[in-house]
Amino acid sequence: MNARTRIALGGLMTTISIAILPGCSSAHAAKSNSIVIEAQGSFAVGGTVVTAPGTFNPIAQGAYDPAGVDPAGQTLHGDHAAISYQIPADARKLPLVFWHGHGQSSRCWQTTPDGREGFQNIFLRRRFPVYLIDQPRRGHAARSTQPVMLTASPDEQLWFGIFRLGVWPAFYGDVQFSRHPAALDQFFRMMVPNTGSYNVEVNTAAVSSLFDKIGKGVLVTHSQSGALGWRTAVKNQNIVAIASYEPGGDFLFPEEEVPEPIPFGKGAFTPPSATMTEFMHFTNIPIVIYYGDNIPEAPTAIPGEEQWRVFLQVARLWAGAVNRHGGDATVVHLPEIGIRGNTHFPFSDLNNMRVADQLSNFLKAKKLD
Amino acid sequence: MNARTRIALGGLMTTISIAILPGCSSAHAAKSNSIVIEAQGSFAVGGTVVTAPGTFNPIAQGAYDPAGVDPAGQTLHGDHAAISYQIPADARKLPLVFWHGHGQSSRCWQTTPDGREGFQNIFLRRRFPVYLIDQPRRGHAARSTQPVMLTASPDEQLWFGIFRLGVWPAFYGDVQFSRHPAALDQFFRMMVPNTGSYNVEVNTAAVSSLFDKIGKGVLVTHSQSGALGWRTAVKNQNIVAIASYEPGGDFLFPEEEVPEPIPFGKGAFTPPSATMTEFMHFTNIPIVIYYGDNIPEAPTAIPGEEQWRVFLQVARLWAGAVNRHGGDATVVHLPEIGIRGNTHFPFSDLNNMRVADQLSNFLKAKKLD
Repeated sequence: MNARTRIALGGLMTTISIAILPGCSSAHAAKSNSIVIEAQGSFAVGGTVVTAPGTFNPIAQGAYDPAGVDPAGQTLHGDHAAISYQIPADARKLPLVFWHGHGQSSRCWQTTPDGREGFQNIFLRRRFPVYLIDQPRRGHAARSTQPVMLTASPDEQLWFGIFRLGVWPAFYGDVQFSRHPAALDQFFRMMVPNTGSYNVEVNTAAVSSLFDKIGKGVLVTHSQSGALGWRTAVKNQNIVAIASYEPGGDFLFPEEEVPEPIPFGKGAFTPPSATMTEFMHFTNIPIVIYYGDNIPEAPTAIPGEEQWRVFLQVARLWAGAVNRHGGDATVVHLPEIGIRGNTHFPFSDLNNMRVADQLSNFLKAKKLD
Repeated sequence: MNARTRIALGGLMTTISIAILPGCSSAHAAKSNSIVIEAQGSFAVGGTVVTAPGTFNPIAQGAYDPAGVDPAGQTLHGDHAAISYQIPADARKLPLVFWHGHGQSSRCWQTTPDGREGFQNIFLRRRFPVYLIDQPRRGHAARSTQPVMLTASPDEQLWFGIFRLGVWPAFYGDVQFSRHPAALDQFFRMMVPNTGSYNVEVNTAAVSSLFDKIGKGVLVTHSQSGALGWRTAVKNQNIVAIASYEPGGDFLFPEEEVPEPIPFGKGAFTPPSATMTEFMHFTNIPIVIYYGDNIPEAPTAIPGEEQWRVFLQVARLWAGAVNRHGGDATVVHLPEIGIRGNTHFPFSDLNNMRVADQLSNFLKAKKLD
């Protein structure tokens, strides 16, 4: 028989194992890096119900036919988000709610392409309750109310560039991504398709319902969910802060303060707008926005770089607008503070512990921990 | 500052909290039901890579276009399984590997429709390492190499019957399913579509790769994965036992011993066959098969009941064949041992703790714990 004593010391959890009875086996003694979970589980939130016209007859319907089911009188519950959560021992008050980007799922926070710990484990160890979202029409929330054709069209070299691992087939020389072939294999296998059309209202409604259910929390967004996060914060005051990793350019500017079109490749990009009332929500919460490395300052013909060059520029303009109106928004371009080589996924890059420390520092500075 | 001492006593984990320094907060003290996790994470396993003809040009490709991407020279990694795992403290040697059924994902083991703990938590508390599968073309493993049309066709009243909650719109009187409307809502929202055609070889190859990676373990299947589990056990000797909840009728009989067609509704059902060499694998491992309640012995016009009446009958015939050839297969019809009211999902029904005890008893009896 074993007894293990855990000592919570700051953000660290230390475990010592002591034998308290003779004859005990120490073969499976707790390691020093264990995580004590008080509660964990999964639930769906938000969504809608579609009902087909007609009458369902449980006898005439017959058995399941893979070729097709008569929908008459039947329902479909869809467009919800699927949430998994873990509450660690001695938990801090505010949970971190992690929202994946385009083509991703909650898995992007659960691990790294090279198999180290992702932000889920890192922030559980730092005693934050962790909620992971699969947004509507994605992953464990794939049940959509709208039909869609999945084309299974090869596209990974495109993402290699947009996700800034390099310019295919070359990795960037300093990139914080394992060169072991298994890492790239695992990275590509983290992608999942949209199982219904992408819909801003469906997504923000579901995640707003999540914050209705769990109360106040810090929203952590990535890439496409950056834009969704801004809009969800307008809907729900339980979002008390946002940390956004490499959000897209869809920052909501006040209608009167939308920037002039910004040159983007051969065209130009104009960010969207919101009413001043909506915009002022962003001045009520601390916001931090992180961008990684290999984003040039000057225009480039490389699409994956050009996209993030423009979006970083828009982020700076937007943070300026938020702060002019009394808010507290910060854009951190990681190379500027000496953190180099990050891809579009700083939270799962090789240096993700340093990246996590930045988030911890933000949460501490804003008294969110 | 808190210290918590955990005492492992048989299958139970008891936690006591003691203050070891003054000034500590007890507001977040560990509850008595905490789970100590030594490791947790996620990975993809198995799968294939498709490469489109042509050459990829990272400059000419341009930015991401939701309307379509030129696949020339690009790859798609798909048809893998996505695995999440947790290793508890003082873990038993053999992991339990849980495989969902048709239209489900790993979420079916993570919780119950009414929000209690699922088999994931229950068996972590009993100190088993737990692996949860999302099979290829499902949930977190939705990236398929084959295109598919998702119809979003309402079908839930059909599943209400096949999953034996009742005969729509009535629940069975004794059914072990919460009558709170939120439970049925959550139950329906656990469903996820196939994101590629259902393929036995793709599924069994991926899960066999999982057992190559993790070594020996006990496979726990449900419904459609029952048939997949038998076939995977033929491929991989690291599957040292199978517990199957309500498997479909696709039991593999020796070619010379396939039963006569069994009346099924207005037709008949003939189970599939295997070579004797393949079949003999089933005699080398302990197997237990559970079926729930509201399965009649006599033919019925109610499709959801008729299906399971036939499959239970086939299960009994198959277990008889396995045992005739020297194996150790048991069919447990839960009502026959006094466990009543179970649906097609005994592991998440209201009495799932009793159902779990049955599995624990099996594992203990077969020296698998």
